[in-house]
Amino acid sequence: MLSTTYKNMLSTKSVIRELAEFAAVRGAEIGYENVHDFSLGNPSVPVPREIDETIIRLLNTKTSRELHGYSPSLGIQSVKERIAANLNRRFGMDYGPGHIFMTAGATGAIAHAVRCVCAPGDEVLTFAPHFPEYMPYINLSGAQLTVVPADMADFQINFDCLEEMLTEKVMAVLINTPTNPTGVVYTAATLQRLAELLYKKQAAYGHDIFLISDEPYREITFSGVECPYVSHFYDNTLSCYSYSKSLSLPGERIGYLAVNPAATDAGLIVPMSGQISRGIGHNCPASLIQLAIAENLDVSVDMGIYETNMNILYDELRALGFKVRKPDGTFYIFPQALEADAAAFCKKALDYDLIFVPSDSFGVPGHFRIAYCVETEKVKRSLPALRRFVNETYM
Amino acid sequence: MLSTTYKNMLSTKSVIRELAEFAAVRGAEIGYENVHDFSLGNPSVPVPREIDETIIRLLNTKTSRELHGYSPSLGIQSVKERIAANLNRRFGMDYGPGHIFMTAGATGAIAHAVRCVCAPGDEVLTFAPHFPEYMPYINLSGAQLTVVPADMADFQINFDCLEEMLTEKVMAVLINTPTNPTGVVYTAATLQRLAELLYKKQAAYGHDIFLISDEPYREITFSGVECPYVSHFYDNTLSCYSYSKSLSLPGERIGYLAVNPAATDAGLIVPMSGQISRGIGHNCPASLIQLAIAENLDVSVDMGIYETNMNILYDELRALGFKVRKPDGTFYIFPQALEADAAAFCKKALDYDLIFVPSDSFGVPGHFRIAYCVETEKVKRSLPALRRFVNETYM
Repeated sequence: MLSTTYKNMLSTKSVIRELAEFAAVRGAEIGYENVHDFSLGNPSVPVPREIDETIIRLLNTKTSRELHGYSPSLGIQSVKERIAANLNRRFGMDYGPGHIFMTAGATGAIAHAVRCVCAPGDEVLTFAPHFPEYMPYINLSGAQLTVVPADMADFQINFDCLEEMLTEKVMAVLINTPTNPTGVVYTAATLQRLAELLYKKQAAYGHDIFLISDEPYREITFSGVECPYVSHFYDNTLSCYSYSKSLSLPGERIGYLAVNPAATDAGLIVPMSGQISRGIGHNCPASLIQLAIAENLDVSVDMGIYETNMNILYDELRALGFKVRKPDGTFYIFPQALEADAAAFCKKALDYDLIFVPSDSFGVPGHFRIAYCVETEKVKRSLPALRRFVNETYM
Repeated sequence: MLSTTYKNMLSTKSVIRELAEFAAVRGAEIGYENVHDFSLGNPSVPVPREIDETIIRLLNTKTSRELHGYSPSLGIQSVKERIAANLNRRFGMDYGPGHIFMTAGATGAIAHAVRCVCAPGDEVLTFAPHFPEYMPYINLSGAQLTVVPADMADFQINFDCLEEMLTEKVMAVLINTPTNPTGVVYTAATLQRLAELLYKKQAAYGHDIFLISDEPYREITFSGVECPYVSHFYDNTLSCYSYSKSLSLPGERIGYLAVNPAATDAGLIVPMSGQISRGIGHNCPASLIQLAIAENLDVSVDMGIYETNMNILYDELRALGFKVRKPDGTFYIFPQALEADAAAFCKKALDYDLIFVPSDSFGVPGHFRIAYCVETEKVKRSLPALRRFVNETYM
């Protein structure tokens, strides 16, 4: 019989998916270039040419077994060595290849991390506003995700709520910095205070609490902002990385889990991840793309486009009277809606072919997310519609 | 705290992995070409040049968003359409793209299939001798794998045992044809009898029993043997396919789940698989390789090498007095060992640098597996060692 768990999930429609479907249908009517589609975090900045050139060179010079043969279940050793060395140089860590586990993007890394450090029934905390997919990522592993209410003032961490909710049942805390959907970077002060609280609670409860740090936007920060390296602050940190954003490669499903060498049983976590793979049918990202990214670890897409887009939108939103925190990075901005009901606000915006995501699925009310990983011309083209929408609807 | 489930798995060493490690160490001592390593099913026949050429052409002609952007979570629509049409033409099926779910190899397909049709605690049956990884694949999903004893006469199905073990708790039966480790193809008569029994039991128990058909060796059959298409025999069939063997692409993790359109709720199974992906961190195989295989669905590696290797080994084994069933396909052969203790037999073979896998982890005693997906010269080089081993140890 079909699983009721997964069958029932089919009836809960994803808001983001519905919006994307609307955009496709509307695009067919009026031309997709006329739909101001800011729904999806699918990077439009082109993949650096180095990546494709590396793939072509590999295909022309390596044997097919070297390129396409089974890679070891923990990842290709030479790739892991390069990633460890690169992280050590950039962030002053001391990873070895045994601390790096190659995954199908950050999603794959989180799937392994949560199974490594949580038994079924254990609790995981994350912070609103949060990436909506964290719900199925964690809950379908058997652990339970609980959302700590947002720090609505500046989208850092609501420590009063956290301290209360960090009970003995909590085995892991999941953070995302820079943050989807706010674009906020957790400051060193925030991470320091989080670490102190986790150390205190570990001691009080007599068990490890792991920090699962989802970092796909780590490289996407704007002028003057530096994203502190989370693992510096707390030993039991599992960093989940993806090349989806920094290299515009989301379709290639390539990333890694990096285990802080100071974590409890740090040397076991990567081999355990290999065991987890056997159960979830993962068995490594594609070998060709592993080899290709390893030769381009210091390459990234032109991030300046995202900052340009952000500044255009931020200035316009402010001029129109929106309350909005200026993003530190990512390609999202998260203004307060002009009415309390974010879904109603976004529905009205559709009349102007403006596609925004209401904040409810991110765990906070009354806001909306604009994903500006699109061409700058597309951002500029949307401004008249945005002005008309606001002026005609809320003035 | 680290998961005890996965931590404990670290202490159970994989026999195949230990043998591969032995081969690597011994290879460093005497040269790998002098180690007669038949341990792994890692295809050595080169990837057809068409595949690499297609990838290069795609990289030179498509935009990076078309190539490397997020693919839909159920797989790229045009790829699914081509696969469905190809299967329909070759096997007389009527799949649509909605019956095809793109996966990271057959492993990924099985991971989704079992979660689709089994709740935690449900039982899945498979048949000895079986691919050892079926144990973690099924058991870590929450279902329970039970092994039906082998039909030792000809490695088809032991129907007396199956009928007894096919209780009401069984929600799925997992088969593998052509079979690893025996190389046997299930005949049409076997599949017909299996289907009749499953239909009977479905009616008796009033619930569906799904047939999960693991088919990575479907195209690797030898002269005069045809591998019947499993889904023809039984409506509730989920076919799990991989391009790892037919295109020598195991590192690229590309395959699919094909749902028989006549299955119960056939239209739900692919969307449900998309939900399952969210929990297990799968989210599609790499986009570039999806696009590349879609243009080469009728291409395969030179399978003749496997048949040549099989014939050389079969003749030599028979000449040396081994009891062995001639394989119908795959790149495995599964002779009876020359003593009852297969592990002891394989350990003694190591003294001759012959690396065979003992049969115990496949669920039957007293046999060993030779994986001959190696160069024919390597097979020939091993024959004197095989003769010396047998003559000096068992004559």
